[in-house]
Order: sequence, then C-alpha cells, then structure tokens
Amino acid sequence: MIVMKETATEEEIEAVLAKIERAGAVPHRSKGARVTVIGAIGDVEQDASVESLGLEAQPGVDRVVPILKPYKLASAQFRHGERTVLEIDGRKIGGEHFALIAGPCTVESREQVLSTADVVKDAGVAMLRGGAYKPRTSPYAFQGLGAEGLKLLAEAKERTGLPIVTELMDARDLEPVLEVADVIQVGARNMQNFPLLAEIGRAQLPVLLKRGLGAPLEELLMAAEYILKEGNPAVMLCERGIRTFETDHRRVTLDIMAVPILKELSHLPVIVDPSHAAGRRALVEPLSLAAAAAGADGIIVEVHPNPDEALCDGPQALLADDFAAYAAAVERAAALAGKVPSTA
Amino acid sequence: MIVMKETATEEEIEAVLAKIERAGAVPHRSKGARVTVIGAIGDVEQDASVESLGLEAQPGVDRVVPILKPYKLASAQFRHGERTVLEIDGRKIGGEHFALIAGPCTVESREQVLSTADVVKDAGVAMLRGGAYKPRTSPYAFQGLGAEGLKLLAEAKERTGLPIVTELMDARDLEPVLEVADVIQVGARNMQNFPLLAEIGRAQLPVLLKRGLGAPLEELLMAAEYILKEGNPAVMLCERGIRTFETDHRRVTLDIMAVPILKELSHLPVIVDPSHAAGRRALVEPLSLAAAAAGADGIIVEVHPNPDEALCDGPQALLADDFAAYAAAVERAAALAGKVPSTA
Amino acid sequence: MIVMKETATEEEIEAVLAKIERAGAVPHRSKGARVTVIGAIGDVEQDASVESLGLEAQPGVDRVVPILKPYKLASAQFRHGERTVLEIDGRKIGGEHFALIAGPCTVESREQVLSTADVVKDAGVAMLRGGAYKPRTSPYAFQGLGAEGLKLLAEAKERTGLPIVTELMDARDLEPVLEVADVIQVGARNMQNFPLLAEIGRAQLPVLLKRGLGAPLEELLMAAEYILKEGNPAVMLCERGIRTFETDHRRVTLDIMAVPILKELSHLPVIVDPSHAAGRRALVEPLSLAAAAAGADGIIVEVHPNPDEALCDGPQALLADDFAAYAAAVERAAALAGKVPSTA
Amino acid sequence: MIVMKETATEEEIEAVLAKIERAGAVPHRSKGARVTVIGAIGDVEQDASVESLGLEAQPGVDRVVPILKPYKLASAQFRHGERTVLEIDGRKIGGEHFALIAGPCTVESREQVLSTADVVKDAGVAMLRGGAYKPRTSPYAFQGLGAEGLKLLAEAKERTGLPIVTELMDARDLEPVLEVADVIQVGARNMQNFPLLAEIGRAQLPVLLKRGLGAPLEELLMAAEYILKEGNPAVMLCERGIRTFETDHRRVTLDIMAVPILKELSHLPVIVDPSHAAGRRALVEPLSLAAAAAGADGIIVEVHPNPDEALCDGPQALLADDFAAYAAAVERAAALAGKVPSTA
Repeated sequence: MIVMKETATEEEIEAVLAKIERAGAVPHRSKGARVTVIGAIGDVEQDASVESLGLEAQPGVDRVVPILKPYKLASAQFRHGERTVLEIDGRKIGGEHFALIAGPCTVESREQVLSTADVVKDAGVAMLRGGAYKPRTSPYAFQGLGAEGLKLLAEAKERTGLPIVTELMDARDLEPVLEVADVIQVGARNMQNFPLLAEIGRAQLPVLLKRGLGAPLEELLMAAEYILKEGNPAVMLCERGIRTFETDHRRVTLDIMAVPILKELSHLPVIVDPSHAAGRRALVEPLSLAAAAAGADGIIVEVHPNPDEALCDGPQALLADDFAAYAAAVERAAALAGKVPSTA
Repeated sequence: MIVMKETATEEEIEAVLAKIERAGAVPHRSKGARVTVIGAIGDVEQDASVESLGLEAQPGVDRVVPILKPYKLASAQFRHGERTVLEIDGRKIGGEHFALIAGPCTVESREQVLSTADVVKDAGVAMLRGGAYKPRTSPYAFQGLGAEGLKLLAEAKERTGLPIVTELMDARDLEPVLEVADVIQVGARNMQNFPLLAEIGRAQLPVLLKRGLGAPLEELLMAAEYILKEGNPAVMLCERGIRTFETDHRRVTLDIMAVPILKELSHLPVIVDPSHAAGRRALVEPLSLAAAAAGADGIIVEVHPNPDEALCDGPQALLADDFAAYAAAVERAAALAGKVPSTA
Repeated sequence: MIVMKETATEEEIEAVLAKIERAGAVPHRSKGARVTVIGAIGDVEQDASVESLGLEAQPGVDRVVPILKPYKLASAQFRHGERTVLEIDGRKIGGEHFALIAGPCTVESREQVLSTADVVKDAGVAMLRGGAYKPRTSPYAFQGLGAEGLKLLAEAKERTGLPIVTELMDARDLEPVLEVADVIQVGARNMQNFPLLAEIGRAQLPVLLKRGLGAPLEELLMAAEYILKEGNPAVMLCERGIRTFETDHRRVTLDIMAVPILKELSHLPVIVDPSHAAGRRALVEPLSLAAAAAGADGIIVEVHPNPDEALCDGPQALLADDFAAYAAAVERAAALAGKVPSTA
Repeated sequence: MIVMKETATEEEIEAVLAKIERAGAVPHRSKGARVTVIGAIGDVEQDASVESLGLEAQPGVDRVVPILKPYKLASAQFRHGERTVLEIDGRKIGGEHFALIAGPCTVESREQVLSTADVVKDAGVAMLRGGAYKPRTSPYAFQGLGAEGLKLLAEAKERTGLPIVTELMDARDLEPVLEVADVIQVGARNMQNFPLLAEIGRAQLPVLLKRGLGAPLEELLMAAEYILKEGNPAVMLCERGIRTFETDHRRVTLDIMAVPILKELSHLPVIVDPSHAAGRRALVEPLSLAAAAAGADGIIVEVHPNPDEALCDGPQALLADDFAAYAAAVERAAALAGKVPSTA
C-alpha cells in the first residue's frame, strides 16, 4: 500500500497508479480528508513485484506499507492455525510437547561428552546437543574437534539413545554431519547464509535455526522460508538473544517477547537458548523458567561436568551436579504453559 | 583504572600518575607484557574525582575502566546481601513476598475506577494502580483527570482498602498526590528528571521508579540513588521495556534479564510492567508468567472493565472478566521462584 | 488504517467498521486477494480518536497502520515546505543560515566562562552556550553553580555581545533563566518532561530541544509539538546521539541520518551536538564536519580553556587554542551544503 | 583483568590466583580501599587462555575486563601507526587516497551494466561495483544473474578499464569470481561466515568486508583478522549501517562514528556504503558528504540508469544523470578531510 504525501499532485498520483498497473497489479485509490492512499494488494509474489517498483523514491510518495507478510510457508496462516509438531526419533516437539535439549557447548573429549550425555539422559532430556564445528568470533579461539567430534557424538548417541543436535557451518561438511545428526543446527551468525540454508533445505533432516543477533523476527521467518521452500518442513525457530544498548552483566539480551510473537506469526516450534544470551550460569535458570512459562516449545541449554576446564563458554554452562534439579524446575514452568515434557 | 596504549611513552605514563596524585588518589602502576595499567582505587567519591580528571583524552591513554560501581545506597553491598522488604499498608513486597498491582491505566470515570477496583480486590491483589496525571507522547491525547482523578482514587481506596499507586509528573503536584497515594510512581520518561526525584526523595512515601526506555540498568540504579540519598529508602525498581531494533508486533522490548541482574546488583525490590512493554493484551499473560517465574518481586498490570472504551492504552488492558484466572496463574508462576503472594 | 488478518471473518470485519463509525469517522473497506484493509482517514484529531479505539486488540485485526503523522505544527506540511529561520539577537539560524554555538559544558568560574567566551567570540561563533543547572547521572557529581552561574553568563553576554544558550531543568527556575537566556535548552533527559515543555511553550523565547537517547525522531517532533502548541514557534531540534548496541569507544551513537530526515519531516532548524555523542575530543571534529556537510543548520559544541581541570565532561571539550581552526573547518563543511555562517 | 566483588573472601581471591597460574599466566594482585583487582596480562593468546578460564562464573568475581584488544594483525599497533594503502590496478585507497566506487546494485542486463559503467567511468570513479550473486532476505526475490552476471562485469571492465568489486556468497563460487573480480566483497550477512572468510584469506585478492548489521566494531575487526591471519593483508572495512531502535524513514542507521573510531583502532582503509544504510536516494548524497568529511577512505554507492526498472534496491540508486555532480561534491568533501581522489 502506498501512502502519498499531503502535497502530492494529481500527476504524481497518476504516475504511481500507472506503475502499479505496468507491474501487473490492480491499484485501488482511496482519498482521505488529507492524503491519498493507493492499495495494490495481490499475492506474496505480486506484493514483492510491487515492492520492487521502488515507489519509495517516486515523487509525491510518503511511504510504502507492505500489507502481506513476506513469508508464506512459515506463516501461521499456511497451516490454518494448526501448529507443527515435529517427531525426532520418538521425541515430539511443538504443540503441547516441550523438549529440553542439553549437552556441552563443544565436544572436547570422549570423557566430557559421554559423562555429560549420561547426566542429561538421567535427567530425562529429549535430545543431546554438542558442537563439533564451532563458529568463534576470534580466529585464535578453539574451533572445535571437527570430524573427530562428530565421532564422539555418534558414540554418545549409541550409548544413551539420545538424538543429536549439532551445528553445520559449511555446506561442504554436510555429508559427515548428516551421518550423525538428528537435528542440524544453524548458528546465529549463519542465519542469513542463504546457500547454506538452501543446502539444508534439500537435506531431509530437522533444523534448529538460530536467530541472528541483529535480526528482526521477520528476517528469522524469511530465513526459515529459505529452508521450507526447498521442501524441508521441519524447522525449529530459536531465540538466543539480540543486541541492545544494554551490554553490561550479560552477553546479549534475551528477547522473551519473541516466544509469544513467533507463535502468533508462525506454526513452527519455538525454542529458547538461555545459555548464549546470558553468558553467565547465574542467569540461566531464571531465564529458562521465564522461557518455559512464556510458552516456549523447548529449551536448548549447555551443561558441563567441569565448566572451569571447558574450552568454550564454560561460564555459562550449568553444572552437571545441578542439572537434574534444574530440569525438574523447567518442567514445572512448562507445565504452567500447558506443556508436557517430551521423552522417548 | 587506566589502561595505557601499547605505544604509550614513559612520559605519558608519568603524566597520568601525576594527575592522579594531584586528584588526591594513590596511583598503582602495573606493567604487563604489552601494556601498562594504572590503578587508582579509592572510594566512590574518589573514583568520581579520578573519573572527572578526563584521562580518556590524555595522550597515551587507551581507556578508563571504572572499578567501583557508581551507586552506593542502591547496591546489594550496602545491605550486605540482605534484601529490602517494603511494607505498604500491611502488604509486603521484596524478599519472598510477591505483590500483584493492578488497575486501570488512567482514571476515566467513577464507575470505571470503582468497578475495576472491585474486580482486582476480589482477585486478591496487593495494590490498586491508576493514573490521574498521564504523560502522553502527543499533546492532543487525553492527559488524565488530574485532581478529579485523585479524588476517585481516594474513593476506591476507601471502598476496597487497597493501597494506591499513582504517578507524579510535576513536583508542583506533590501535595495533592501525597494526600491520596500510598506509592508514588515515577514514569519512564521522568526517570532522570532529577529535581522531581529529589523532591520525592524528601517525601516519606514508597516510590515505584520505572526504567527509562533508553536507560541501562546502571542509570536506573543511579536514579534510585537520587531518591535514596535524600533519605527515602523505599524504592521499587520497575522494568517496563526498552527500545531495541525490534519494533513490530510490540511496543517496546521487555528486558527479562533485568530481573535477575537487578537482584544481583541491588537490594531493592524489582517489579515488572508487562502491559506497557507489550502494548497488546495477548502478550500480557505470557510475559507476566515469565516475569514471575524469573523471580520478580511484583507485577504491575492494567485492567479495564471495557477496554474498547478506554481513553488510554485500551489494547493492552486485561479484561476484567479474565482477571481472576490471570492472577491465579501469576501466583503459580511466582511460587516457582519461591515467592508467596502479598495481601493484607 | 486497519489491516485485517487473512483469517478474519465477515463478523469481525463488520465489528471493526461499526467501531470506526461510532468514533465518528467514515470507514472505507477495500478487499485484496487475500486480506481486507479498512481505511479511516480523517484529521489528526480524528486519527487519534480512531487510534484510541484499541483496534489492535480487536478479534481479526492484524495491525493498525497510522496514515497521518501525529504532529501537525512541527510538520514540513504546516509551512508548505518553507523552512523556519529563527533570528536570535541578529543571528539567523535555519534555511541557508548555519550557526555555530560554542562554550563550556558547565559554568565553573568567572575566569573560565569569560576566557572561553572571548575565544569563541573571536572565532566568530553565533552564540555562547554554558550550563548553570546541570543534569548529572550521579547525585554525587557536580550539579552546576545555579543562580551564580546565570550571573556569570550574564556577564559574558555583556562583555561579548553573544546571545546565551542555557539549560532549564526545573519549571520552578524559569524566571531567573528567562532573565539571562536568549535560547532555553531542554536536555535529552527532559525531552518528554511534558509540564516543563508546556511551561517553556508559554515563555516567548527560542528553545533548543535535545533528542532523548532512546527517542525515535517522531517522539522528538511530538515533544516539539508540545512547545509549539502553547504558542511558541521558535524551536530548534537537536540531535545528540542515541543508544545503540555499540557502547565502546564512544558515549552514544550520533545519528547522522537524523539531519536529512528531520529536514524532510519538519520545517524547524536542525542542530547537532557532537560533543555529548562522542564523549571524546578526538571524535568531535570529524563528527562536526560530517554534520555540517550533511546539512545541519547549526552545531553546538563544548570548549574549555583547560579541559583537564573541567568539572564536567572535560574529555570531550575542544581546546580553546584549537578552536579558531576548528570553526573555520566547520564553516567550509557547511558551505558544501550551501550554508552561510551566521554572525551578528 | 579480574575485578573481585567487595565481599570476596581471601579464599575466593586465592582460588582465582591459582587458576590463572595453572593457565600459565602470572597473576598480579592489587588491593584498593574496597575491592581487589587481579591482573593477568600476557599476549593475545595468553589473554584468550585466561579468558577461557571462565572466571566470570567463579565465586567472588565481579567481572572480567579484557585489557588487550582481541585482534592483532588488524590493529593500528601492528603497523606502528602507519596506515595501509592498497593499490588496485593503479588505484590507491587508504592514507590520503580517497576512492569512489560506484555501479549498479545488481547486474541485470548488458545494457544496464555497460551504460552505468560508462557513466561512472566518465565521472572519474576509482572502481566499478556490481553484484552477480545477491543475498536477498526473501527467497522469492531476484537472486542475481550468477555466472552470466560475472561475464557482463568482465565485459564492463574490458570496456572501461575499471577494476571490479563484486560479492562472493559461497566458497564454492570462489574460482569464477576470482577470474573477474579485482576486489571480493563480503556482504554484511556473511561477516561472520568464518569458512568463507578463511577461504578468501587464502585467495590473494583485496577484500571489501562489510560490517554486519548487529556487529560491534570489535567483531568487524575480528572478522578482518580471520582474513589477515590466512596471509591476505588487503582488507578494506566497510560501514553500511547498524540496527537501532530507529526504523522509520530509513533502512538501517549509518554509524558515522565508525569512521574515526575504526581509523583509531586499525590501519586498514575504511569505506562507507551510504546506499544500503539509507535505502532511499534522497539520503544518499548528504550521507556521502558526511562520510567523506568525516575522513572515510572511500565510498561505495549504487547508480542505475533507470532506477524505476531496477530489479533490486532501485529506490536507493543514484540517477545516472546526477552522478557526475554527485561525484564532484563528494570529492570536495573528501578534500576537507585532506584526501585526494584516486583514479588510474
């Protein structure tokens, strides 16, 4: 929809009408007491073609207000209000099913990953997380064990039966990751790595897509749309904090509002990652309870048997010894939002 | 603490040492492999005087890192880790006590305020909120009933026995507000209206101080310090959302992390206002549950018997008919965080 | 304008139409391929009354898009595209006139203010700035000399003939400030101190209104509207930085885009304060040149004869010795944008 | 450096000292009037290993303040204050050399790219920009001509002699891009696509690295470090706007302060992209003048012979007819900052 300036002339209005017609859409003129508004409502693709007209820069135009949402497959309307419930190796997630996903930030050693896997398994989590390929802000930081890490995750899966969530950073590593992963994680920094998204869309494996630190929710949904469009319907959206002016005592700012808003906008399950938002263990439990009480479909959280020795993000890892109590508290919070815990 | 540049010369280092000495503090030089760091650790006041030296602009200086927190009376250390528990007309708030504060955004009519007061009273809230003086972004919007509104609040208090929370915008209105209010609210836009804060600091009435939309938590604590410094120890801190790049589908962004972080930094009770952050009714309950589960000491929320007719912020008001169920759910969430509801 | 959800029923659409009619506006229904859009275009006041209907929370409504700008007197349309040119004691500002305003952050002593006044006078500035009442984040920081400071400003004006720009923080100090000031400054923290704005609106003196650190431009214009509505047409808008996620190496982030955007939206002169945005001297000149080249109508900047001894904001003050060269460079940048320097 | 809490016990302090020693660094304890501060200053790698200790979560620790900058090769210190001047096919950029880079957003057709190339060549620009692979928020938007687009760029280079700046999105397209490009552009969304950065670091071609919309400057420098570390020293840093709460009338917010701050922190050339920040033609010239006056080493800008027909970002493209006047104005602004225009 195009809002004209109060000072727009008849010629300027007609020029806009003509452009919309040339783009194949039907303009609809409506004159208020002070301004003229021109509608050009069509399908998403038509909307995109009207948007690509560049009317913002046309003389007499005040602004262009998109009416249709720019995503389709990810929208709540696409499933007529029904929610997507994924089933991953017997664990459900979405709808009334709440899944706790836990494990080490990064796979560091056989002992670390196996002992953590045992702890989270005993606490009844739905899936095991662990990174073999790690995106790190600094080129001097530990970058993960790579293929060796994948092998250790396979061993942990063999031992505990837990499905594995692990990150893919480079489309060229897709095959080895597919061999081990039950869920492919796309990190926040890769949320708009479109070739990677398309590649993952062609793989038939559930995806956990993290929101970029500077990404509005609409862009997260558009990133999901890249995956869905390739034929992969199994996308989980993950809130993990956004950049705000508040930079002390936290790493980024958890956008708790993303939980109810994403559930309004989309049928896809919504997961929260409190560990990376917080950056500090003391904040992880209150944020987890908040996320579960707000209606999240799951939480992905970091645990370490000995965080002081962790090679990556130790300060935010929950202590293995405290994990069972934590998991029980989170379940109670999820129950407040009408959710049942998901296990095999 | 002053971090010198790697390229700082001996002369530049000595100039900094000399300045710190002239300011009456004792500099402490420490040389690492690559940079020199100069400490000048004293009391808050000394710290302020070292900060006022303007060393950031001194040749050879990379940056100045404040070590001591710039607030004292508001800090957790000031009460040695003990939490402040306020008692307002028999209702406790802080520590293990959770207070639900509810009522209309603005006092609009006798019927509206009395019927809302009855509804929230029946649901067992701790206090009644209602605005007689309303700060509005637009000069063309309804600005509140003023003195007439205060009278209606007095009548609601008389009728229900509920303590009254109401906003003061102008120091010149202090007296009439003091006659009716049990808690003076300072709105987000006035968080750094220092003459108003000082005036309220001299009044001996509890204060609910809302965080400004662009204010880091440290500035909220400094604003509280203005009130505490005048001798009024009864300040509640209120998170009500911050400005972020996410502007769709919400009014501002609720900073849920503010709850656990403020409780680390300060002994003062922490309240959350989900209504003004959300701007839409559908978000208010999930955000309220999140806030309570995260450990907030209270929630302040808007209710209206007929929000469609509200003169201010109708879309965010809870429906009176739904309020009892809402209040019960919030209580359960607060219980998760170990809180008991506060009533007379 | 109200955008309905794709799933909105005929009943929901009719309920919206009925509400708009009851509010005294004429609804205009327009049906696209997928959604229905309902216009309710009237005057600003009508728009406000439609907005106050709370349609955001009505069943079937996706969102409400305001069409008219919520400010009127401050809008570019109000003067049909003609720019406001203020004349302050013979100095013009706005249109093609560029005014450099300089002086100390705070009046600290007779010698400091008079020597600074001489320096900036010699460099040909349009006005002298200086604070007698200083809003400070910390209650422990120097709060200005108050009435004594105003006297020193009067003496500087007497001596140099320069008009005085000084801040008013408290409506109760209006009278003494009016005796000395040629321009009343409203600080960023008071941008939405509505009783103060209304009081200043009733005083017939030009106003320099600083943008709040968390305020969108539209809210700055609404704050100006509060002053204009009381009959005072002489408002200058001042950009001085906003809060963003970038918090290192700067105090806040100068929003250079505010300059061309405010000039599109409003007829009022646009001033930039690089000193408070930067917080460090080294950034002040590049930002000043940027602001002048971008078309600002003026710059307000801090100068100190001996910044190391300054009681407030020394690190960001320009050195008096460098000021003449700085002023000449800024003039050249303003000339690029077609501006002539304003002097008596 | 580790700042202990005021309440830290002797045991807690000693535990921190012990951990630092175990990490191979030498702790340095310094006791102020109220808090103890522990230094552990080493090399960047040691600093990283102290950081990886997770001391933030250790009992008694208030916070960890990194002293050394986490990037080395990108830092101003690395070249002892000397600035990097790149020479690309005879065009210099950096130091006193200012390079204007212009061309279409996206290569759309032979005629479009050749006619634009002629226009910008005639105006004396240093390089031609043009996208063959386009990252688009929506999967339904035009994604660029790919290999066909590269051919057209090769033809434009052949015809005009202008070096080509073009984007690489997928490491698997590196070879064809290397055949045509003189500068590889890394888009904002790929700023932390670390495998792509490393791949480009191994290619010996200059790189234009755009800042992510949510990336602090330090993360931009770390991303540059990924490229430099692989042995490619020719990196240009590009500011193109950040996400802030201000979302109206612009696409993102140009961070003009990034120009002087990046030049303080790094020896690498700093480029500004006003087109993508603005999103609207009317803002491009004021922002370009601002950037040049603030000391940018270059500007990259979009031009189109017929923006109304552009398939991508038409509203922000400068009109070809206006380009010569624009280029002349930008040169004058750059001259204010002491720069000479770069041509062959």
